[in-house]
Amino acid sequence: MIKHAKTEHPIQDFVAKRWSPYGFAVRDVSEADLRSLFEAARWAASSFNEQPWNYIIATRAQETEFARLLSCLVEANQSWAKAAPVLALGVATLHFKRNNKPNRVAIHDLGLATGNLVAEATARGLWVHQMAGILRERAREIYAIPAGSEAVTAIAIGYAGDPEAFPEEIRERDLAPRERKPQRDFVFGASWGDPF
Amino acid sequence: MIKHAKTEHPIQDFVAKRWSPYGFAVRDVSEADLRSLFEAARWAASSFNEQPWNYIIATRAQETEFARLLSCLVEANQSWAKAAPVLALGVATLHFKRNNKPNRVAIHDLGLATGNLVAEATARGLWVHQMAGILRERAREIYAIPAGSEAVTAIAIGYAGDPEAFPEEIRERDLAPRERKPQRDFVFGASWGDPF
Repeated sequence: MIKHAKTEHPIQDFVAKRWSPYGFAVRDVSEADLRSLFEAARWAASSFNEQPWNYIIATRAQETEFARLLSCLVEANQSWAKAAPVLALGVATLHFKRNNKPNRVAIHDLGLATGNLVAEATARGLWVHQMAGILRERAREIYAIPAGSEAVTAIAIGYAGDPEAFPEEIRERDLAPRERKPQRDFVFGASWGDPF
Repeated sequence: MIKHAKTEHPIQDFVAKRWSPYGFAVRDVSEADLRSLFEAARWAASSFNEQPWNYIIATRAQETEFARLLSCLVEANQSWAKAAPVLALGVATLHFKRNNKPNRVAIHDLGLATGNLVAEATARGLWVHQMAGILRERAREIYAIPAGSEAVTAIAIGYAGDPEAFPEEIRERDLAPRERKPQRDFVFGASWGDPF
């Protein structure tokens, strides 16, 4: 299903058609596509080229591994994400390797990397649904995430399914229109709140 | 100048050719392009669709405004960013509007929005150089950024210049190859440090 953004100004197709499905089709993501998604993440910008992003991945084909990763999500997310062909955790390393000082933008830069991943996915006809609702300490225990690094998000990757094929709860969410506040509410000029 | 990433797996052109120039050409960015860049940011994903991103913009044509925004950068960034045709601050709102609870992923989601902006820019032949080196409290004072929101990054937008036309300090940085750690160092499977 295509849910084009109702844009006020023209944007690239891979931005306009991105949305976050709750219902995934029963279709695997190829190894080649998956590698290209993380390759796109790899080439994001980061402060001092620190590359503070890390990802932990499991595909549904790896039953045990998939169940472990799924268990790091809050229940409300597990309920739909269990049907995604690929799950990942996005993990930020919060200190600079060269001097161990705090990296104030580590989580921001994880967002840049995942943004690249999402754009690459959309351009390939794949869909991504990111989640903040995760069990961070569970993820740390299961994967031995070291002190100084922290799971920030989970990411479901796959093909959007036909909403009509899903239970009402999922169908309604996937059919809901995409809404955003207008630029005048967040793009400012001379002062906070003054539209640019 | 094109500095294509040396990728290990194929990725979209707008990801592969993105880099962060220090030297900008003397060429304005059109109002239409600028609106489309922030429109791309607008349609990013965010936790609970909070859209915690805000931007403050000044173009070099607005002399006074541009000088004010430039003054929010650390000196090392002012030295080259003063030649960019457009500067912006990226500001995250750190609490959810609906319940005033902390938004743990606000800064991450600002990264997603700016990632969209950067992808849109690259697809249009524009270049973006993001900076963490800013004077956050100065930005708060100058723009009356409210408590609960915080300037996180600065963003220079424009056309990359010909490196040969710039002083050695800028030329060397712009001619340096783009380097990234390999996927095995940040894409993990069963456990932290185990390549996927």
